[in-house]
Amino acid sequence: MNFQADNLKKYVAHVLEKAGLAAKDSRIVGSSLVSADLRGVDSHGSMRLGIYVKRLRAGVTNANPEIKVVKESDTTILVDGDNGMGHVVGSRAMELGIAKAKQKGAAFVGVRRSTHFGIGSFYVQQGIAEDLITFAMSNAPSTMAPWGGIQPFFGTNPYAFGVPAGEQRPIILDMASSVVARGKIILAARKGEEIPEGWAICQEGRPCTNAQEGLDGSVLPFAGPKGYAFSLMVDIMCGVLTGSAFGSHINNFYGESEKPQNLGHFFQLIDIEHFIPIVEFKRQVDQMVNEVKLSPRAVGTEEIFLPGEIEFNSEKEKLKKGINLSEEVYEDIGRVGRECGIEIKDYHG
Amino acid sequence: MNFQADNLKKYVAHVLEKAGLAAKDSRIVGSSLVSADLRGVDSHGSMRLGIYVKRLRAGVTNANPEIKVVKESDTTILVDGDNGMGHVVGSRAMELGIAKAKQKGAAFVGVRRSTHFGIGSFYVQQGIAEDLITFAMSNAPSTMAPWGGIQPFFGTNPYAFGVPAGEQRPIILDMASSVVARGKIILAARKGEEIPEGWAICQEGRPCTNAQEGLDGSVLPFAGPKGYAFSLMVDIMCGVLTGSAFGSHINNFYGESEKPQNLGHFFQLIDIEHFIPIVEFKRQVDQMVNEVKLSPRAVGTEEIFLPGEIEFNSEKEKLKKGINLSEEVYEDIGRVGRECGIEIKDYHG
Repeated sequence: MNFQADNLKKYVAHVLEKAGLAAKDSRIVGSSLVSADLRGVDSHGSMRLGIYVKRLRAGVTNANPEIKVVKESDTTILVDGDNGMGHVVGSRAMELGIAKAKQKGAAFVGVRRSTHFGIGSFYVQQGIAEDLITFAMSNAPSTMAPWGGIQPFFGTNPYAFGVPAGEQRPIILDMASSVVARGKIILAARKGEEIPEGWAICQEGRPCTNAQEGLDGSVLPFAGPKGYAFSLMVDIMCGVLTGSAFGSHINNFYGESEKPQNLGHFFQLIDIEHFIPIVEFKRQVDQMVNEVKLSPRAVGTEEIFLPGEIEFNSEKEKLKKGINLSEEVYEDIGRVGRECGIEIKDYHG
Repeated sequence: MNFQADNLKKYVAHVLEKAGLAAKDSRIVGSSLVSADLRGVDSHGSMRLGIYVKRLRAGVTNANPEIKVVKESDTTILVDGDNGMGHVVGSRAMELGIAKAKQKGAAFVGVRRSTHFGIGSFYVQQGIAEDLITFAMSNAPSTMAPWGGIQPFFGTNPYAFGVPAGEQRPIILDMASSVVARGKIILAARKGEEIPEGWAICQEGRPCTNAQEGLDGSVLPFAGPKGYAFSLMVDIMCGVLTGSAFGSHINNFYGESEKPQNLGHFFQLIDIEHFIPIVEFKRQVDQMVNEVKLSPRAVGTEEIFLPGEIEFNSEKEKLKKGINLSEEVYEDIGRVGRECGIEIKDYHG
C-alpha cells in the first residue's frame, strides 16, 4: 500500500494519541517512525507501531512521563525519562542539550529510565538543524555475546553522528554495533531464508546460516573484537554512567511487556563556532564531500557514497513517490489502529 | 635484546633530549613509546625512535613548540600544537582538558597543528588516573580509500576510550579505523609474507594478499562501510573542526620529512560525579567486568577478555621479565643513539 509520508505520519500519530500519548508526543514518535520509513530503515519505522501501542496500553511504557532533569552543571545534564517512550524522552533531552550547547559551547546529556528510542539519526538531525555537531547513542536489550562468548550480554547498541554541511547534504553516520541489524535476521527467519555466515552464532556458539538458530543464539559484533568493545563503550556511557540498567539487566522490548526497559541514552553536542567559524567548517565539509565523491572508484562501483547519503536519496524519492508498505505491515498497523478506533483507509488514497 | 622498561625509557628519553627536545618532553615521549612496547603494541613503541629523531633534527617537527590555547570557553578548548611532537602536544592538551573537566564537569579539547601522537591509550590513561571518562582520537595521513574507492584518502584514524574501575583494571578500548594496523602489513612485507585477504586492496582496487601490493594500494576499513564512516567521523572532529588538515591533505610521516604533518586530535573528558557517584560507577564497572568474564565461552575459547585486558597482561609480564627488542630494532635504535652521541649498551645489562 502506497502512503504519502505526511498521511502515514498523521495515521501513526493519531493511533498513538488514542493509545494515550499526548498529541505533541504522538507527533514526535510519528516523525521518527516515518523518518525511518523514508530513509529505508524499515525495521525502525511504522511497522513497530503494534509493539509501541501494546506497551503503552499495558502501562509498561509511561504515556505521560514526567521527564525531569536530575542533575545539571555548566556542561552536563542527567535526565530521568520516567519510562516514557524513548523517542519522546530522547527528543526532550536533545532540546535541553541544544539549549546548553548554544549557551555554553557544548553539552553532554545522559538519560536514564528510558525505552527504545528509534533511529539515532533522528536526534542527530535535531542537532544538525541547529548547526551543532551531534553524537547520539543508546544501549539496548542483550542480543550479542561478548567476543569469545556464546550468551547474549550486550545489545546491538546504536551509535549515530552527524555534522551540517554548506551546499552539500549533512553527513550522518548511524550504525549498530553488530554486523547487521537484528531486524534483517528476523526478516530472513520469517521468510525461511538462510543468512550469510558471519552474521550470527547458534546457542552453542557455532557459526550458523539458519536465521532462526541465529535469533535463538547471538548476533555477531562488527569487526569481531572491535564491535564488541564498541558496544561495551556505548553500554558504559548509556547504562552505567546514567544509572540505568546495562548488559543483560536491560529488559526485553518484545518479550517482557510487564517490565519497563530501564535503558539509557547519551548525547553529545558541540557548537562549532567555539572551535572555528561555522562558515569555514561547512566549506571544509563540502570540500571533503566533493573530494570523496570524485575519488577514483573500484571496478563495479558506480558511485562512492558519503555516510547517510543513501538514506537521503531514499528519503527524497519516497517523499515524491510515497512510502510503500508491504501487505503484511499494512494489515498489521491497520489492525492496531482499528483496536484504537481508527480506520487506516481514511488516511490514504 | 632484553631491556628493563625503565632503562629503555631512559635511553629513549636521553636520545630525544640529544635531538633537541626538552628533558620534560623527552620523558613524556619515552613514557608513551615504552608504554606501547609494554602493552604489546610494538608498532607504536621504541622502534619508531629513528623517524622521530630524523624529523626533529630536520626541524620539521618543532623541538621547542609554543603550545598555546587559541580559543576557550566553559566547555571547550582549542589548542595549537605549533608542530611539536604529538605525544607532547597531546599530553599538554589532556592536562588542560583534565583541569577543565574537574572544574566544569566535562571538556571537549580540539588540537590543531600537531603530529603523530603515538598510542591513544596513553591519553586515556592520563584521564583515568584522574577518574575521568576519556575519549582520544587523531587523524592520520591517508592510507585508506573511501568505501568503493581505490585511492587512499582517510587515515587509519585511531580512536581510544577508557574508564576507571574499582577492584578491576580500567577498561580501555584503543582501535584503528582499519581492519588491522598498517604496521602489520609493513612487517609482513619486510618478511616477504603474504597477508590474509580482506586487509588491503592493490592500486587497481583488487583484493590482494601480497603485502607490498597492499602497501602500494589501500588498507581496508573495519567492517567495510562502517569503518569508512567512522574514520571520516574522526577526520571531521580532528581535522575539520580544529582547523587542521584532513583527508589526503595531511602530510606523510615517513615520506614527506620536509613538511609538518599538520594533523589534529580531539579529546573528550567527563567527570563521572556529574552523573553518578564515582563509587557507584566503579562498582557497576566491576560488576560488568565480572559478568563478562564469567559469561559462557565458545568451544576453543579459554578466556573472555575485556577491552585492554590483553594489553594489561602484556604490561604486567614485561614489567617483570623485561621488554625483548628484536635484533633489528636494537641495531636500529642503537645507531640512532650513536648518531646523537649516546651508547645504547650503557643502558642495559
